[in-house]
Amino acid sequence: MKPKNFLFVHGAWHAAAHWNDVVERLVRMGHRAFAIDLPGSGLNAHYPQSYLRNDFTALASEPSPVAGIHLADYADAITTQLISMARNGKVTLVGHSFGGLAITLAAEAQPELIERVVYLTAYVPVPDLPNAVALASLPEGQSSISGAILIGDPRVTGAQRINPRNADPGYVEKGRQALYNDVSTEKYLQFAAYCNPDLPLAVAFDNAAGTADRWGWIPRTFIRCTEDHTVPLMLQDRMISEADAATPNNKFEISTLPSSHSAFASMPDRLVAALVSSFPGDAATG
Amino acid sequence: MKPKNFLFVHGAWHAAAHWNDVVERLVRMGHRAFAIDLPGSGLNAHYPQSYLRNDFTALASEPSPVAGIHLADYADAITTQLISMARNGKVTLVGHSFGGLAITLAAEAQPELIERVVYLTAYVPVPDLPNAVALASLPEGQSSISGAILIGDPRVTGAQRINPRNADPGYVEKGRQALYNDVSTEKYLQFAAYCNPDLPLAVAFDNAAGTADRWGWIPRTFIRCTEDHTVPLMLQDRMISEADAATPNNKFEISTLPSSHSAFASMPDRLVAALVSSFPGDAATG
Repeated sequence: MKPKNFLFVHGAWHAAAHWNDVVERLVRMGHRAFAIDLPGSGLNAHYPQSYLRNDFTALASEPSPVAGIHLADYADAITTQLISMARNGKVTLVGHSFGGLAITLAAEAQPELIERVVYLTAYVPVPDLPNAVALASLPEGQSSISGAILIGDPRVTGAQRINPRNADPGYVEKGRQALYNDVSTEKYLQFAAYCNPDLPLAVAFDNAAGTADRWGWIPRTFIRCTEDHTVPLMLQDRMISEADAATPNNKFEISTLPSSHSAFASMPDRLVAALVSSFPGDAATG
Repeated sequence: MKPKNFLFVHGAWHAAAHWNDVVERLVRMGHRAFAIDLPGSGLNAHYPQSYLRNDFTALASEPSPVAGIHLADYADAITTQLISMARNGKVTLVGHSFGGLAITLAAEAQPELIERVVYLTAYVPVPDLPNAVALASLPEGQSSISGAILIGDPRVTGAQRINPRNADPGYVEKGRQALYNDVSTEKYLQFAAYCNPDLPLAVAFDNAAGTADRWGWIPRTFIRCTEDHTVPLMLQDRMISEADAATPNNKFEISTLPSSHSAFASMPDRLVAALVSSFPGDAATG
């Protein structure tokens, strides 16, 4: 197989580091792979003071230091990276969960740099359902249990906030059940330790829809995760249908993993196998 | 320039994620680059229960869950990665600080897979000074101030322990001064949030010396950091001299950065420029 260029984009509260098991495998195989920290995430995170002080009462109402970040900032960070990486060949752009919005907006801006966009149980905005709020509000999303880990009032904090440093066993188990229901509590804690508390509120309302003329002709894959408790399988399938209806001449290729929301943690080998599969329309593979 | 393969190894209390700004730049340039989480670090960390509970009194005496890890475990993780990556060409193996011991032991095991070993203000064990304790005890190391951030009794905890979640301004500033004295407090907190509390005690006592017949003939570079408050410049220069005396026919190539201990944070562009320089003896460059 010809080496590919992979760029990974994390979801809400997550960071580049969470892709490490996946990136490791791809680099071992000879591919170039890199995961980005979106603005306000990972090494770019800005933490509420109460979070740093472990003052969990104050954390419920402290305004978020990342509240000013918009989806366009995410997309700009991705396109900057895309432009550099694409000098060595087109890029396979992979988004997880909330990262689906960011990769769509970036792909809309730079479709010619992208070999394929891959949605790992990720949001797929389309003109009729252009943002996270619209997608998550669909009837197919109502069984999601990730709301149980939110703290504080978003209108006060300016963020959808979680508390990765709350070690209360009940809270930890809610997080594991929502996001990592197929890994042990100990492994969940390893991944949770690298999570950020704040998803800027605005990014859920910003319009991220791709158009048929730009995003719509990029080959694309959806990796369904059947045991996902955050983006329920019914919602994944609804988003696949909506996108395919929007671009009937360029439909999703589909892979399916028997995974929680976090296949990068629970089954990195199978996820990598899905990522390196040759799909119809991949000129560079075979 | 021909693309290279880079493998990065973090130092004490650090993780793969801390290399992200460096890896990003190398991948943009077309290189393959990956940073490993050593056993007990990063996504492989195991946290004291008191750390997760933010019980900083108990943290001073809770036995470390990573106390059983030895330097050979670090080296095994590196050589596994080396063997895979080297199928696509020899690897430039880069270690920071404590990671110098681990890369030396791995290089001793697999010298034929390595294009160059690079010590970023890192420990260089030699037969006369074969471990971290011996090297750090040299007179040239006595101005190090990193001891000020240690907590607890290593004979009780089984670890050299710090507390990255202690937000006391005095403690934070001690950490910044020791490890990141050329970045802002806010940036230091971003990097500190991804640090691990425990360095297993045993790894500082394990013998990691390379021999002239194996490690000793691998081309090597030392990147000196002149403003380092953890591995003082005098100690860096002493280690360079000791290693060069041990292998007089294969001496260090030297680069120098006006950096703190953490050049990957404060000057990633200049660090990358030093890493991609062509050195005498690099057959694959030019």
